[in-house]
Amino acid sequence: MIAERTGLDLDVARVAVRSASRDRNVTLADGVLTTDPASVVNDPGVDVVVELIGGIEPARELLSSALKLGKPVVTANKDLLANYGAELYTAADAAGVDLLFEAAVGGGIPLIRSLRESLAAEPVRRVMGIVNGTTNYILSQMTEHGTGYHDALAEAQSLGYAERDPTADVEGFDAAAKASIIATVAFGARVLAGSVYREGISGIGPADIAHARRLGYVVKLLAIAEQVGPVEGKPELAVRVHPAMVPGDHPLASVRDSFNAVFVEGDAVGELMLYGRGAGGRPTASAVLGDLIDAAGNRRRGTCTPIGAFGEPVVCPIDDLESEYYINMEVLDQPGVLAAVAGVFGRHGVSIRSMEQEGLGEQARLVFITHEATERHVQATLGDLRELEAVRGMPALLRVVSQGS
Amino acid sequence: MIAERTGLDLDVARVAVRSASRDRNVTLADGVLTTDPASVVNDPGVDVVVELIGGIEPARELLSSALKLGKPVVTANKDLLANYGAELYTAADAAGVDLLFEAAVGGGIPLIRSLRESLAAEPVRRVMGIVNGTTNYILSQMTEHGTGYHDALAEAQSLGYAERDPTADVEGFDAAAKASIIATVAFGARVLAGSVYREGISGIGPADIAHARRLGYVVKLLAIAEQVGPVEGKPELAVRVHPAMVPGDHPLASVRDSFNAVFVEGDAVGELMLYGRGAGGRPTASAVLGDLIDAAGNRRRGTCTPIGAFGEPVVCPIDDLESEYYINMEVLDQPGVLAAVAGVFGRHGVSIRSMEQEGLGEQARLVFITHEATERHVQATLGDLRELEAVRGMPALLRVVSQGS
Repeated sequence: MIAERTGLDLDVARVAVRSASRDRNVTLADGVLTTDPASVVNDPGVDVVVELIGGIEPARELLSSALKLGKPVVTANKDLLANYGAELYTAADAAGVDLLFEAAVGGGIPLIRSLRESLAAEPVRRVMGIVNGTTNYILSQMTEHGTGYHDALAEAQSLGYAERDPTADVEGFDAAAKASIIATVAFGARVLAGSVYREGISGIGPADIAHARRLGYVVKLLAIAEQVGPVEGKPELAVRVHPAMVPGDHPLASVRDSFNAVFVEGDAVGELMLYGRGAGGRPTASAVLGDLIDAAGNRRRGTCTPIGAFGEPVVCPIDDLESEYYINMEVLDQPGVLAAVAGVFGRHGVSIRSMEQEGLGEQARLVFITHEATERHVQATLGDLRELEAVRGMPALLRVVSQGS
Repeated sequence: MIAERTGLDLDVARVAVRSASRDRNVTLADGVLTTDPASVVNDPGVDVVVELIGGIEPARELLSSALKLGKPVVTANKDLLANYGAELYTAADAAGVDLLFEAAVGGGIPLIRSLRESLAAEPVRRVMGIVNGTTNYILSQMTEHGTGYHDALAEAQSLGYAERDPTADVEGFDAAAKASIIATVAFGARVLAGSVYREGISGIGPADIAHARRLGYVVKLLAIAEQVGPVEGKPELAVRVHPAMVPGDHPLASVRDSFNAVFVEGDAVGELMLYGRGAGGRPTASAVLGDLIDAAGNRRRGTCTPIGAFGEPVVCPIDDLESEYYINMEVLDQPGVLAAVAGVFGRHGVSIRSMEQEGLGEQARLVFITHEATERHVQATLGDLRELEAVRGMPALLRVVSQGS
């Protein structure tokens, strides 16, 4: 089908694997399989290198060699791109060959190509993505069936959606790596995974989800990359991963199960959403194949998809960002508590949009939604609230997503 | 920004307009504006031609000339592509230059590029799109506010969503042209607008929408292109536009207002949806600019995005397609009517999944949902039902969208 549609006759020349003896249910000619990846990259018969190893080394060294040899590279390696993307982009640019990575974010969703090519001229304002299927599955179970976090996680593990050690997913590391790649491509700016603010979902309780729901919101783990303004001619970006309350009629709110979606707001294009399977062998393979066809066709035509210029952005610390907040705290059920709590909000200039008392006695809770406030002031408010005798335990906090302007 | 991101210095060399005297709120150098479009195409200083005239002539002749002169073309002209696409694709292919048309379907949604490039290797099974914003606005108003068809149309007209003569939108001609382009690109097969089965929304009443809703469905005008099987090695496609009942939890069900979305089902990629503003000056401009950057970059590198091979498909007539059906008819409220009606269904082998009587006396209606049945048999059933004395007026019919397998 590929030959018929594209005129390209692709041939799997060499395949490097960790174990050559494992049964893989594919037939390869003798000598194709090897356990030495460097021999594949260096083989003069290999024209395009596809990397699906994952992790930093040896992928980093292998891809650097491939690019230096003038071989186009297709990769699904989000960690490598999020941490060493700049050196790879530079190497690809210097060699004038393709470095394509559609499968690194959002599996089979054609996000990277859309951002790099279709929206090349679009002044993108904000990109918000549900880019981790495991956490979306967990949050969807909690939302739709009232399941607790630990039960939903166990379910995700038994379905193979979550790893035995789920940290990379549930603490937002996976989403943060993807956020850095999205920010890099959407804003033409080098953003490393380490500069992405990150919060996971392990602190979210069924009560938070139920409250959000009652207020018309759905809780989602979002990767957000946003232009907050130019600083001395450089783009100032805010890039972060945290659970957030999404308005129920927002297109991201209906992204359920383990699906991924990325919502783009641009000055000209308006609102755009790309939705699909963000992981899994077949969707990932579909994205890799699309890139491979592109790379092989470009190679034959002696050209490549330009990488584009990536500037150094100013990354705005989360403390300076503004948002509405949901704050939920256990309190002693006695007179004067609300006044004391409201006083703390007031001292930090955080203004309250709505308040609700929930439960009585031992179960008493106060649930607040603030007006737009600065993270720094909200965190200071929380710090002081913890000192109040009337406040028991740690207040829970969720940021509320504003509708695009 | 374009120069900075892409290294391309684009210059608006010539602009052909119908009236040179109209105030356009842009400043152009002397001699740029002309009323002679051929002079723009033939100007040796023009490297890329952008066509935003619409309609068949003179666009067809102008673009043919441009391609023959070896100039890449960017166009938003859906009617031209839907009727004369084959000759333009052939001309572009022969000249080895780009023919890009992202803006022709779905405005700013990166659909065409995704189908042509990202999904180049994807065995696409079905594409279902809400590709006409006007009808989606009308149906959304009817669904959410119980508005009647004529009031919703008048509202769409007053908002500028619908033309004074709304035929092209409400009778599905616009969607059919887009369906033919989608089918061509998704399946690599030449499908002309004339071979697209087409039904509009002007026959939909608030009662149909209310029934659908009660049964858990939303009514949408869909453009559907589907592979139904290969016939003697050629793809057999079914391409059609008609209102349909979409399950309430399907991603297309939540596409409201004048938004567009295209839902793709592929063997490897699974389910994919692209959502956004399908019309309007700015989203369209965003898509045109993305294409223009691509075409200009390719021209500088002496290459082009390959058009791909387009075979002649076998187009499956709607009569041979299978679906579940919603059928709603006014009946005389008297004993024996249901037996007579059910008898007609039975004689044509159309089996009934559910039946509901609505209203009494003058208002009595029967509402059926069938099991999967062939269009031919359902149409024959309707024909016979009309002959029954107990059935008053024309039964209404809606096809029910199946969840992807």
